[in-house]
Amino acid sequence: MDFAPDDRTAELTAQVRAFLHDRVLPAEPVLDAQLDATPGEWSLRPVVRELQDAARAHGLWNLFLPAGGATGPYGAGLTNLQYAPLAELTGWSPRLAPVALNCAAPDTGNMELLAHFGTPEQRERWLEPLLDARIRSAFCMTEPDVASSDATQIGTRIRRDGDELVVTGRKWWSTGAMNPDAALLIVMGKTDPDAPRHRQQSMVLVPRDTPGVTIVRPLTVLGYDDRDHGGHAEIVFDDVRVPASHLLGGEGEGFAAAQARLGPGRIHHCMRALGTAERALALAADRARERMAFGRPLADQGVVREWVANARIEVEALRLLVLKTAWLMDTVGNKQAMTEIQAIKIAVPRAVQAILDHVMQLFGAAGLSGDQPLAEMFAGARALRLADGPDEVHLSALGRAELRP
Amino acid sequence: MDFAPDDRTAELTAQVRAFLHDRVLPAEPVLDAQLDATPGEWSLRPVVRELQDAARAHGLWNLFLPAGGATGPYGAGLTNLQYAPLAELTGWSPRLAPVALNCAAPDTGNMELLAHFGTPEQRERWLEPLLDARIRSAFCMTEPDVASSDATQIGTRIRRDGDELVVTGRKWWSTGAMNPDAALLIVMGKTDPDAPRHRQQSMVLVPRDTPGVTIVRPLTVLGYDDRDHGGHAEIVFDDVRVPASHLLGGEGEGFAAAQARLGPGRIHHCMRALGTAERALALAADRARERMAFGRPLADQGVVREWVANARIEVEALRLLVLKTAWLMDTVGNKQAMTEIQAIKIAVPRAVQAILDHVMQLFGAAGLSGDQPLAEMFAGARALRLADGPDEVHLSALGRAELRP
Amino acid sequence: MDFAPDDRTAELTAQVRAFLHDRVLPAEPVLDAQLDATPGEWSLRPVVRELQDAARAHGLWNLFLPAGGATGPYGAGLTNLQYAPLAELTGWSPRLAPVALNCAAPDTGNMELLAHFGTPEQRERWLEPLLDARIRSAFCMTEPDVASSDATQIGTRIRRDGDELVVTGRKWWSTGAMNPDAALLIVMGKTDPDAPRHRQQSMVLVPRDTPGVTIVRPLTVLGYDDRDHGGHAEIVFDDVRVPASHLLGGEGEGFAAAQARLGPGRIHHCMRALGTAERALALAADRARERMAFGRPLADQGVVREWVANARIEVEALRLLVLKTAWLMDTVGNKQAMTEIQAIKIAVPRAVQAILDHVMQLFGAAGLSGDQPLAEMFAGARALRLADGPDEVHLSALGRAELRP
Amino acid sequence: MDFAPDDRTAELTAQVRAFLHDRVLPAEPVLDAQLDATPGEWSLRPVVRELQDAARAHGLWNLFLPAGGATGPYGAGLTNLQYAPLAELTGWSPRLAPVALNCAAPDTGNMELLAHFGTPEQRERWLEPLLDARIRSAFCMTEPDVASSDATQIGTRIRRDGDELVVTGRKWWSTGAMNPDAALLIVMGKTDPDAPRHRQQSMVLVPRDTPGVTIVRPLTVLGYDDRDHGGHAEIVFDDVRVPASHLLGGEGEGFAAAQARLGPGRIHHCMRALGTAERALALAADRARERMAFGRPLADQGVVREWVANARIEVEALRLLVLKTAWLMDTVGNKQAMTEIQAIKIAVPRAVQAILDHVMQLFGAAGLSGDQPLAEMFAGARALRLADGPDEVHLSALGRAELRP
Repeated sequence: MDFAPDDRTAELTAQVRAFLHDRVLPAEPVLDAQLDATPGEWSLRPVVRELQDAARAHGLWNLFLPAGGATGPYGAGLTNLQYAPLAELTGWSPRLAPVALNCAAPDTGNMELLAHFGTPEQRERWLEPLLDARIRSAFCMTEPDVASSDATQIGTRIRRDGDELVVTGRKWWSTGAMNPDAALLIVMGKTDPDAPRHRQQSMVLVPRDTPGVTIVRPLTVLGYDDRDHGGHAEIVFDDVRVPASHLLGGEGEGFAAAQARLGPGRIHHCMRALGTAERALALAADRARERMAFGRPLADQGVVREWVANARIEVEALRLLVLKTAWLMDTVGNKQAMTEIQAIKIAVPRAVQAILDHVMQLFGAAGLSGDQPLAEMFAGARALRLADGPDEVHLSALGRAELRP
Repeated sequence: MDFAPDDRTAELTAQVRAFLHDRVLPAEPVLDAQLDATPGEWSLRPVVRELQDAARAHGLWNLFLPAGGATGPYGAGLTNLQYAPLAELTGWSPRLAPVALNCAAPDTGNMELLAHFGTPEQRERWLEPLLDARIRSAFCMTEPDVASSDATQIGTRIRRDGDELVVTGRKWWSTGAMNPDAALLIVMGKTDPDAPRHRQQSMVLVPRDTPGVTIVRPLTVLGYDDRDHGGHAEIVFDDVRVPASHLLGGEGEGFAAAQARLGPGRIHHCMRALGTAERALALAADRARERMAFGRPLADQGVVREWVANARIEVEALRLLVLKTAWLMDTVGNKQAMTEIQAIKIAVPRAVQAILDHVMQLFGAAGLSGDQPLAEMFAGARALRLADGPDEVHLSALGRAELRP
Repeated sequence: MDFAPDDRTAELTAQVRAFLHDRVLPAEPVLDAQLDATPGEWSLRPVVRELQDAARAHGLWNLFLPAGGATGPYGAGLTNLQYAPLAELTGWSPRLAPVALNCAAPDTGNMELLAHFGTPEQRERWLEPLLDARIRSAFCMTEPDVASSDATQIGTRIRRDGDELVVTGRKWWSTGAMNPDAALLIVMGKTDPDAPRHRQQSMVLVPRDTPGVTIVRPLTVLGYDDRDHGGHAEIVFDDVRVPASHLLGGEGEGFAAAQARLGPGRIHHCMRALGTAERALALAADRARERMAFGRPLADQGVVREWVANARIEVEALRLLVLKTAWLMDTVGNKQAMTEIQAIKIAVPRAVQAILDHVMQLFGAAGLSGDQPLAEMFAGARALRLADGPDEVHLSALGRAELRP
Repeated sequence: MDFAPDDRTAELTAQVRAFLHDRVLPAEPVLDAQLDATPGEWSLRPVVRELQDAARAHGLWNLFLPAGGATGPYGAGLTNLQYAPLAELTGWSPRLAPVALNCAAPDTGNMELLAHFGTPEQRERWLEPLLDARIRSAFCMTEPDVASSDATQIGTRIRRDGDELVVTGRKWWSTGAMNPDAALLIVMGKTDPDAPRHRQQSMVLVPRDTPGVTIVRPLTVLGYDDRDHGGHAEIVFDDVRVPASHLLGGEGEGFAAAQARLGPGRIHHCMRALGTAERALALAADRARERMAFGRPLADQGVVREWVANARIEVEALRLLVLKTAWLMDTVGNKQAMTEIQAIKIAVPRAVQAILDHVMQLFGAAGLSGDQPLAEMFAGARALRLADGPDEVHLSALGRAELRP
């Protein structure tokens, strides 16, 4: 057992940290200004493009994608364990850092899907421009009418009609899909409702401009429309026709592909969330040292010290749990790491939400406003507790496994 | 000891409940549509005016204001204990119900101040149009640069210059002040920084259109700008001159007046928050009965039952605590009720926030969006934990009192 | 609505408080010494008898038992609401005060059963000596082999054999039954396993010295054997024969009688627990003012203040909930008060346990030892979370009711 | 970074696990019977001696003590990281497993002190018989009159009088000291109250039978006297004279030695506590599968699953944190690992206490009794929150460090 990072991880961590502090954090007010100047617009702002150019120039690009095996020549070749600390650093600036490094959800998961399951044609048409950040993409799974954590309930239908696939259904929370540059929608639907439970679903690649695709409206998360990264869309698919070659992976493999997509995604989400917590704690420390109340800095108050201490403990313990999960995925595979993958999905977002709640409190009303990044981070952590199914579903599954003889 | 409401309370409760269900709740989507149709506008929407007319016609108007004593002929004559259940009902629809009955903060507190401390001229010019809902008002106390819970730190200065008072300072979180109809700003500032700690502050009435008043910008709470009720403004007062007759109450009485304003305000806030929790629990019960996951309704899941049970227990216990606080204020006065006033200020918003968090979780991502009232209610409950000073300040004071010999 | 106690309550409260401070609290070290001097003995110690004599002389005797109606001429005639604050005061000294006033469980519940359901002969033989504290009693319901919260699972059988009832089964947690003076055991068993779910059980009066009754062993709660009040026994009933006239109430009425016994019992338990919390908070305040660490008293530490404040808030809110429950029982009956009776059963013991845990922490290791009453109180509060069924069963029932359309 | 244990750890873990299941767990009821048969006795029972012989024969002996450096030829030569999983396993049976392997507190810490700071004569006289389990020892630090977490407050005085040291003071919570075989007491006291804060204290070796040493009384922890391992004593030192050569380490080095003793001790305590939690979870799983309520096993209830899942998550995360702390101690030293050492001291005992509380609840009243090991384990976890200073002191220190610029 060894808790020291390897050399490549240490080196990349230092580079990403420097990029974060030198380039990304200073760009945050620039993004705010560009967003204020462009109400109603959903595409990436110029400052993001500039950061992307800089990151590419520094070789900090597509770090999330493992090399070798099915993913072929594309990725940076990092293991999950090596990438994890880099993901954490991007969580310090969730609106800018992940996208700057072309490591932002949902594109990361979509690129993984294309790398693992795509045909050479699919890869050429979609994966390469995504890896190059020339287009963006969305993942269309959640539906308004059913509990999506129960995969058998998915209502969207994909039927074959000659050489075509016909998609009909209603999706929402398709993150990024408000962005007109999100050229690709990966849509999950049922190809065979009579197949066994986990063989009913398939995925299909639908260009966003296909006739029958209607972007109905943007959704908000605690008041935020997340315009900076393409928002969250409700989308109707009304007899949308694509060539049969747009099937991603085999028929009936949608559920398995979605599961495969989840493992790395949770490492990324959780590490980013921990980075967000670290940023918040750093802000809290500054605030506590500077803000005076009743004649002394907030940092001198026992109550502040106590919750900061508890936050530190939780972040340290949970980071180790996420790293171990990444290590398990790298060494024994996602399936053997199921308990841990569930565990971090449950534990990290709620801990980070609670920490952000505390830090907002320390900032007073300013903490709730746009003057600090905290409130928007809070909304993000809150949403994570529902992403890929509510915590409660995962707790139940984890508990069931634990009680099995 | 008797836990039954008196006849007048029972009767008014029934009337307000009927008004809520018949008129207010159906108006919520209308408000949403009118808000969508008028981006960037901060004044009350037509649907609010219609509800106000209906409430006035039903005699459900200005119920918050006690009759008799200093408040003279204005109010409905209810005690705090009698008004409390009505405030709770308005919490079911926080954007519409309080304002419909002309019982919305900050106007309520401002009307109380004017009724208690205003000269006949001040009452005529400001109180009467407020009671009549012809104008709106704001209360300018919190400042960006200091911890406002420590009254000695207030930076705004009010100096006398002949027959005039000159106000200089920067305020924020002046709720309602983005609304151009908020004709009156009640501003707290220091008239004598050398006076004893609680005699330094005074209040002055500043018409919003006085030269030197600059409405700098709106603030957001989580992602909400609260456009429906005039938002939250940052305001600069730059050598703003008003006649000396605009002083509200005596010089040096600002702190005491602010304290007097707080007691009833906390009853109102807390009861409304409990009403919000009741609305959320009602929505939760509907959702849990209807939503199916893994073959059965959510209502059949033990985990859902357990948190709903805990929520019910907390709401019942805290409602009684608020009602007892109201009763103490009515019988022994705000000063003797200090511990209880602090207690409810601390306990109710955090409990309601936690309940809303749970209910949002039950609704899945829909709970975070604008499709349910939950997320905006959550932002409101979260903000309450900071209104009138963060919980931590009140916990410390309450604990200190408890540990006194 | 009125939160002031009536005159009789106020007067009795003052008398009981004086008795508590003048007689009971000073007797605690005497009891400790008498317990130390008599290892292995289970009957009441002399100091208890002296306190009982004093209480009787002051007219503070059997206050728990309502007058009138079914209970006939026996009780003090207090309503549940009137008795509740007296029960709270006895919770300050749980080993001595309840028994001193002849208001200790399980005798109180047993006396209520006899008063409500007993025949004149049963009352004469058992109720009168209990009211007179000449004997003690136990209630034998819980069984080691089944979840007793599910009444249908009770394994003890009561069969009729001519003029006799024959009892066979194994009970445990029969509180008080180690005491040889516990002349009466009230035993719950099934008379008809084929009857409808809640008509299967009956209660029978079994003298402790009946052949076939074997007191197997005492049980401990955490490390306490509760020798002062007769401990908790495991008892085997092996073809125990009593006359058929020993049936208490009608055949098949055992479940209903047990339910009737629970309502007042929970008021008593909960109010006593709150009294325990008040004692602990009083001890905490003394400790916090006197104990120095790092140059200042513990009372000056914000963390101490904060948890004390939170404890105060919880105690105040929960006391009101218990009082309201008592009032509901008095005015609309136990059945209509079911939600509240469940609510206090759940909420009070866990809150009191948490408060005691905090106060023990404040006392350092001394808080865990016999030098303070805290640890034994903690064990008592912990046990309450299981008495009459674990919290979880009640939470589930309450939640189910709340989610019903 | 690598989360796999090394070969030696894996091998020893398997051996200790086998010994635990084959020998230790079956011996638990034997210990209970021997304890029941010998009330009032404080020395080790025969079953312990038999287990010690068996462990020695298996080479599972003194595993806790590192080899090399100052500790010379004594220990098994394991690093903290290697020993940690073995300590965890001993926590499954806290009364028997640690002592069986001669790895029980406080002897472990005392042996470390002697190994690090003892003279050859001191080692020969005390360390060798301790390593051989021929004697036992106690550590006398905590005092009844002061907050011992504040080292400057220690009241015991050690003054030099010619060739002798004279010890005067009162200690309590001297674990193990009721055992007449505890031949050695290591006593902390002030040699120079005027020296700098952390140079005032020294340690002295006092044979338990020295004139002037009075074992005043045993103390209890939540009702338990811990007779199996020598209890917890209050001890008076009344002008106790020992040769000056009994000073352990240099004069003024007592504080530093105590600190050095703490680091490994916390690893041991925390790992054992996690083992206790694992045992409890294993018992919970058995119980939940077997116990029926309302027609189905408890394992089918969502509420049970949820808390079991949460317990699993916490145990996994905290174990990693303890292991990382051990690794830091091994690689960068105790001083650099201070934050982590504090973190685990705070986080582990409270988590384990909460888990035990849940598991007791699952067992109903049986969980509180001596029929399950849970209640006594609970008392142990509760006591850990105070051992080496209350959590609050450590939280404050950790928070202060976190808020430092």
